[in-house]
Amino acid sequence: MHTSDHRPGAQIQGSAVFPHRHLTGISGLQPHEIMFLLDEAEQWVDANRSRAKSDKRLEGLTQINAFFENSTRTLLSFEIAGKRLGADVVNMHAAQSSVKKGETLIDTAVTLNAMRADVIVIRHASSGAVRLIADKVDCPVLNAGDGWHEHPTQALLDALTIRRRRGQVAGQRVVICGDILHSRVARSNILALTALAAEVRVVAPSTLMPPAMDRMFVTPFTDFDAALEGADVVMMLRVQNERMDGGYIPSTREFHMRYGLTPERLARAKPDALVMHPGPMNRGVEIDSIVADHPERSAITEQVEMGVAVRMACLDVLTRRSRGVEGWA
Amino acid sequence: MHTSDHRPGAQIQGSAVFPHRHLTGISGLQPHEIMFLLDEAEQWVDANRSRAKSDKRLEGLTQINAFFENSTRTLLSFEIAGKRLGADVVNMHAAQSSVKKGETLIDTAVTLNAMRADVIVIRHASSGAVRLIADKVDCPVLNAGDGWHEHPTQALLDALTIRRRRGQVAGQRVVICGDILHSRVARSNILALTALAAEVRVVAPSTLMPPAMDRMFVTPFTDFDAALEGADVVMMLRVQNERMDGGYIPSTREFHMRYGLTPERLARAKPDALVMHPGPMNRGVEIDSIVADHPERSAITEQVEMGVAVRMACLDVLTRRSRGVEGWA
Amino acid sequence: MHTSDHRPGAQIQGSAVFPHRHLTGISGLQPHEIMFLLDEAEQWVDANRSRAKSDKRLEGLTQINAFFENSTRTLLSFEIAGKRLGADVVNMHAAQSSVKKGETLIDTAVTLNAMRADVIVIRHASSGAVRLIADKVDCPVLNAGDGWHEHPTQALLDALTIRRRRGQVAGQRVVICGDILHSRVARSNILALTALAAEVRVVAPSTLMPPAMDRMFVTPFTDFDAALEGADVVMMLRVQNERMDGGYIPSTREFHMRYGLTPERLARAKPDALVMHPGPMNRGVEIDSIVADHPERSAITEQVEMGVAVRMACLDVLTRRSRGVEGWA
Repeated sequence: MHTSDHRPGAQIQGSAVFPHRHLTGISGLQPHEIMFLLDEAEQWVDANRSRAKSDKRLEGLTQINAFFENSTRTLLSFEIAGKRLGADVVNMHAAQSSVKKGETLIDTAVTLNAMRADVIVIRHASSGAVRLIADKVDCPVLNAGDGWHEHPTQALLDALTIRRRRGQVAGQRVVICGDILHSRVARSNILALTALAAEVRVVAPSTLMPPAMDRMFVTPFTDFDAALEGADVVMMLRVQNERMDGGYIPSTREFHMRYGLTPERLARAKPDALVMHPGPMNRGVEIDSIVADHPERSAITEQVEMGVAVRMACLDVLTRRSRGVEGWA
Repeated sequence: MHTSDHRPGAQIQGSAVFPHRHLTGISGLQPHEIMFLLDEAEQWVDANRSRAKSDKRLEGLTQINAFFENSTRTLLSFEIAGKRLGADVVNMHAAQSSVKKGETLIDTAVTLNAMRADVIVIRHASSGAVRLIADKVDCPVLNAGDGWHEHPTQALLDALTIRRRRGQVAGQRVVICGDILHSRVARSNILALTALAAEVRVVAPSTLMPPAMDRMFVTPFTDFDAALEGADVVMMLRVQNERMDGGYIPSTREFHMRYGLTPERLARAKPDALVMHPGPMNRGVEIDSIVADHPERSAITEQVEMGVAVRMACLDVLTRRSRGVEGWA
Repeated sequence: MHTSDHRPGAQIQGSAVFPHRHLTGISGLQPHEIMFLLDEAEQWVDANRSRAKSDKRLEGLTQINAFFENSTRTLLSFEIAGKRLGADVVNMHAAQSSVKKGETLIDTAVTLNAMRADVIVIRHASSGAVRLIADKVDCPVLNAGDGWHEHPTQALLDALTIRRRRGQVAGQRVVICGDILHSRVARSNILALTALAAEVRVVAPSTLMPPAMDRMFVTPFTDFDAALEGADVVMMLRVQNERMDGGYIPSTREFHMRYGLTPERLARAKPDALVMHPGPMNRGVEIDSIVADHPERSAITEQVEMGVAVRMACLDVLTRRSRGVEGWA
């Protein structure tokens, strides 16, 4: 589908093309580094669609998924990604963990490191927890979502989906609508999409809009209808139940009326605009089923598929140095 | 032990011998199709008893066990089965899942499908949930128990146990005793055993007996003693705690008195009658320990062993088409 | 680091050097058998530090981790150990298990055995539960902690850590401080360290000190300061929250004052004395952070690393008979 300009260069340059030890966020990544990860992911999209899904390049490596916050989909996606690459994948669930016994986060990090993990995937409710752990271990750390901070693989899979469906990311008008203030998905997406030269608009009630959005190179809207004019992509965020309880949103019904993606509202975007959602969806709240399930417009299922491919790419790329891959050691 | 007439035919006919994409229930299976699965399972019984348990035919395939209802034994059995065949096995626990976040069952199915699962094993508290998912995915779906509906691999392992211990299923008088009304184990067993020409008697208090049992080709009894006359196999069902709470059963003591399998009661069956139970057992309620642990009569442990073999057979057979096995593609 | 005298003998003698079917405890092991396991573990320390962590000697074998009591670290350690040896590792969590449905422990054992497990790792809140299961199954059973009884792999990893850091175990003055009465870690360590001719001192408030410690060949102290004189190793035990609730300990503050390992207190031990803790630590209660994190004195991280190596050694050695390894069959 997409022909990459970056691939050949990557093969020549080796680690120079992606010099980072960890993937803690999109922040700090150069546009060509983001593109490199998307290019790498392309091969896994093809591999996963064929019967030859098994690759053994991570054989003998231990991948620990340390999920301090529950997330079935993201855990499943990382677990499948690691196993398809041949890694020994081990899940650590917080609910059963020493964390409950009062162990500090750093002690947990040191423990996983002492077990000679080769890559650690972390999800944590606190912003910055991933960075804290990354500083304490000898292996690459992958952020699978930390607090309100970042969720970089989500942004990468979203960018890959847009690139495949729209040909490129640059120049696309992407509207992100929902709880921008608390959303790590929004934050990572803003960073990735603006880096790739998309035109990003964010939409939220004023209580859920962060200040100074212009410094992130995006245009804030409180009026969803106005924001949708000429949109190439409409990316809906999930309404978190805790927000509704917290008084940020008067009611799901009112939220739907002002910020729900209905067929009428979608008609304001470009005729072939793409509909995206990180899932799981609250159907009838932030998105109507007729939009979510639209055979041509909705890319929601493809986002899930791209998720596995992107995570395979990240696991592969980040472990190249320790695996002694030529040009990366 | 059992010499199959079906095996050679199967090898010649390929997919014609088992044309089903999914295993959602025993209902819809032809007798020769059931026999085919039992024949296939035989080889895995032998393999599992040897040191060479590892087979790599499912290498590169992703098996997702989506258990929306807890079941340690069944999950363990499917997980071991898949791993022994070389699959990448991933468990999705409902307790941590998006289901809790209000995701619809169909969204979950579409998500698992987008991750390119090659076979999905589902357990769910609602009858028909498995069928719903099967209709939405591109890969084979295996029912590991759905509501009061079916539990086909349990029926297959029970039939295999009977065939191995009694030489054949046809003509055996099988007495199934317990909560027939709510039991998917009973339902799947009735379908499988009658298809294989066994004579099936069902025993339950009238409150726990479904209507019109003659239309299922079984004979209903409320008197356990009467039903046991001449029995070749006595299959006890587990008393579910929720039934006792719900007023269906006056007390476990009274239930034991009328429907518990005691040595005295077993004496009414044939002298070499087989004792079966799907487990886990309520010792002293539906079955006495002296019967459950009888060295010659009890086949309860063998049922567990047949479970792994039957599940390996089902996973193998259902993935033959996608694996491009000759005669199945 | 450590050059073994036992290795060559082991290779000649085969199973004679470790004639045990199970590892239920340190009790019953001869000193040379303990040394043999430590020697075996050494190779895995080296392997785990290299990139070639993968070994396939347990390929085709099913390892079931049956954890009836939560323990993230120990489970993780056994899971990683088994996967690095190529076993099919399956976790059975008690919280989701038939145990909740009232299944007896023996029924669970018989079930796991019928699924043709090749090695079972068990953690259970009841002393003796592991022995009970070991008697009912055909495969080796490894105790991962049972009640107040034993935790043999913890003692082995502690002995290995001491041997590597101090050159040998014999003659070392080891001070074990904390809740000696309820600690399986203390119990297994006392058995292993005295077997290997260390001089063991145990320190506890009188309410948490078992009677007749002289019969275990250790010297009891209630005064931590006095016990520390000339210590080569200071091994702190974790204060369990349930002890504090139970009235055994007046308050964590008072406990820290009398039995916490502070820098001042550590100064009473030898200048190069080693600090150990099985983890997870209650920093500020039984141990101060400045001691726990001491770059030269603390061996706490190394203990975790030795844990994986020791468990790999135990899994390997115990399955040699069933794998038909020369000299072991």
